[in-house]
Amino acid sequence: MERIHGGDWAAYELEYGKQPLDFSASLSPLGMPGRVYQAAIDVMRDAGRYPDPSCSRLRAALSERHGVDRAQIVCGAGAADLIDRLARVLQPKRALIPAPTFSEYERALLSVGCEVERFPLPGDFHLQEEFVGAITPETDAVFLCNPNNPTGLLTEPALLRRCLERGGTLIVDECFLDLTDDPARYSLVSFLRDYPNLILLRAFTKTFAMAGLRLGYALCGSAETARALRDVGQPWPVSVPAEAAGIAALKEPDYENEVRAFLRTERARMLQSLSGMGLRVVPGQANFLLFYSEDTDLAQKLRTKGILLRDCRDFPGLCPGWYRTAIRKREENDMLLKALGEA
Amino acid sequence: MERIHGGDWAAYELEYGKQPLDFSASLSPLGMPGRVYQAAIDVMRDAGRYPDPSCSRLRAALSERHGVDRAQIVCGAGAADLIDRLARVLQPKRALIPAPTFSEYERALLSVGCEVERFPLPGDFHLQEEFVGAITPETDAVFLCNPNNPTGLLTEPALLRRCLERGGTLIVDECFLDLTDDPARYSLVSFLRDYPNLILLRAFTKTFAMAGLRLGYALCGSAETARALRDVGQPWPVSVPAEAAGIAALKEPDYENEVRAFLRTERARMLQSLSGMGLRVVPGQANFLLFYSEDTDLAQKLRTKGILLRDCRDFPGLCPGWYRTAIRKREENDMLLKALGEA
Repeated sequence: MERIHGGDWAAYELEYGKQPLDFSASLSPLGMPGRVYQAAIDVMRDAGRYPDPSCSRLRAALSERHGVDRAQIVCGAGAADLIDRLARVLQPKRALIPAPTFSEYERALLSVGCEVERFPLPGDFHLQEEFVGAITPETDAVFLCNPNNPTGLLTEPALLRRCLERGGTLIVDECFLDLTDDPARYSLVSFLRDYPNLILLRAFTKTFAMAGLRLGYALCGSAETARALRDVGQPWPVSVPAEAAGIAALKEPDYENEVRAFLRTERARMLQSLSGMGLRVVPGQANFLLFYSEDTDLAQKLRTKGILLRDCRDFPGLCPGWYRTAIRKREENDMLLKALGEA
Repeated sequence: MERIHGGDWAAYELEYGKQPLDFSASLSPLGMPGRVYQAAIDVMRDAGRYPDPSCSRLRAALSERHGVDRAQIVCGAGAADLIDRLARVLQPKRALIPAPTFSEYERALLSVGCEVERFPLPGDFHLQEEFVGAITPETDAVFLCNPNNPTGLLTEPALLRRCLERGGTLIVDECFLDLTDDPARYSLVSFLRDYPNLILLRAFTKTFAMAGLRLGYALCGSAETARALRDVGQPWPVSVPAEAAGIAALKEPDYENEVRAFLRTERARMLQSLSGMGLRVVPGQANFLLFYSEDTDLAQKLRTKGILLRDCRDFPGLCPGWYRTAIRKREENDMLLKALGEA
């Protein structure tokens, strides 16, 4: 299958010779925090030598943040790296994923010969009890995203606990969770103690707008799984600037609060404006919104105006007409709204 | 198998609370070129967004440098990333590697269930005609390193051509080649036109002392192989600063000449000094030297003095007593020689 992701500014630049206003990748609208940026620059003097393959310092900081033993933590070159490693380590024969969801779960699973069952989400895209019922004793692994990408909808921890109780490994990708209003209420970090079959994926990419540095991590219910994840693939996945930026990012709780507060207001405004245009908008909770338009050429029309939307037609479970837009700065969002109004 | 590599300054720091003088990783003794360092810093303002997944700019620059079509070039997070991807793409049933050599070939091959045959190099460690003879119709892939790691010895292109003629895929890791005296004479780049079964691995890591940024690339005889390599694993292996540093590095031919000239002199001096101590030194051509000492505790003794050597006892084909030392700056090498003299 062709590999399509948002954020492909390079392809746009090649075609148009300039930079787009990119709503197709969903990153923190406040940009990389100044001290994180500076940490990545300051550490460049050490970038001549190999990175620490065990990422000891970053793992110590993550251990403190999450209250999870460092033996259960694995760092990687973005969550996408960890998704790939997970499929290789777990080697599931059968796996269940919701549809629509982030495409890299299926791609990674197929790459190890796994049979992937797509569970079609209902019309409102909420993950419900029926999903739990679809987990059978033959289901070796379940991959899902909370909040889901591209819907932005959250799933209750109680329901995810019932998924865990069915057995098999549950991988919950919480990469966008820190951008929702109340991450603590929805995160499964506290479940790690009781469920060795739980793995959480988290990334710095979105929350701290550092996609270009490639840094994510997995929190594993089992230290054995963590060790296997470290041992698969290349030994130095995390670069020197990425590790330094991650350590600096963990010292920025105010930034995180600020992003969340900004998104709370701006998400509501965008939802209202898009709905006001007669578009069907899914009430997502992350830093992006999924909407439907009768116009299946919308993304292409905006592209010629220098604006990138994520055309979601390639997501299994969605059809042409579905688009995902990031929530950016207020004035940038206004430019999008204006362009949508004209299109 | 346990995964041991040089350059583990972090483990040393954890044990001793300070930085070692590290001869266990072999990087350019002149350090990262100033303009490469600056390019990585300057581009940090763009590190918020995703990297270009196709690395178009870097691949264009590499295409120009090597005279190889960009469709045959794949960039990755260091050569180690590409070794791992190669094993996954080729999925060889049987592979041949020399012993001793860099351990990641075998690790990657074993991770895809390949049966790995180690060809024991003769006493002088030169790869000779017998190696060609060991390639049978059942050999799906041959991995080797030119110059070899940890011996530093070069293999003649004519012999490697005979390996290619035997069929199967030949992967030649040229990561250290640009640090030898006459890279053009030994590189197989010109063979790529005639042999779709040839893959060359190259890295910026060693030549430009940028191990911490993670950047390497593969030049493939076949564009199909290149495409498959890009499609396996995560979509954004090369970070924003790594791509920028790579592009800047390709504009530094003077630096490369300077490194080679420095190494030519210093390698000869080190070889003479080590031999003068009664050590058996392999006359390697790269930025490191392999030597044998009766003292199997030598690395540990130097470690307590703050100096790291690569103890090579874990290399299949070598026994305790073999060590690899990087060639560093002259005064640093003098410190090593002094410490060796005392030990």
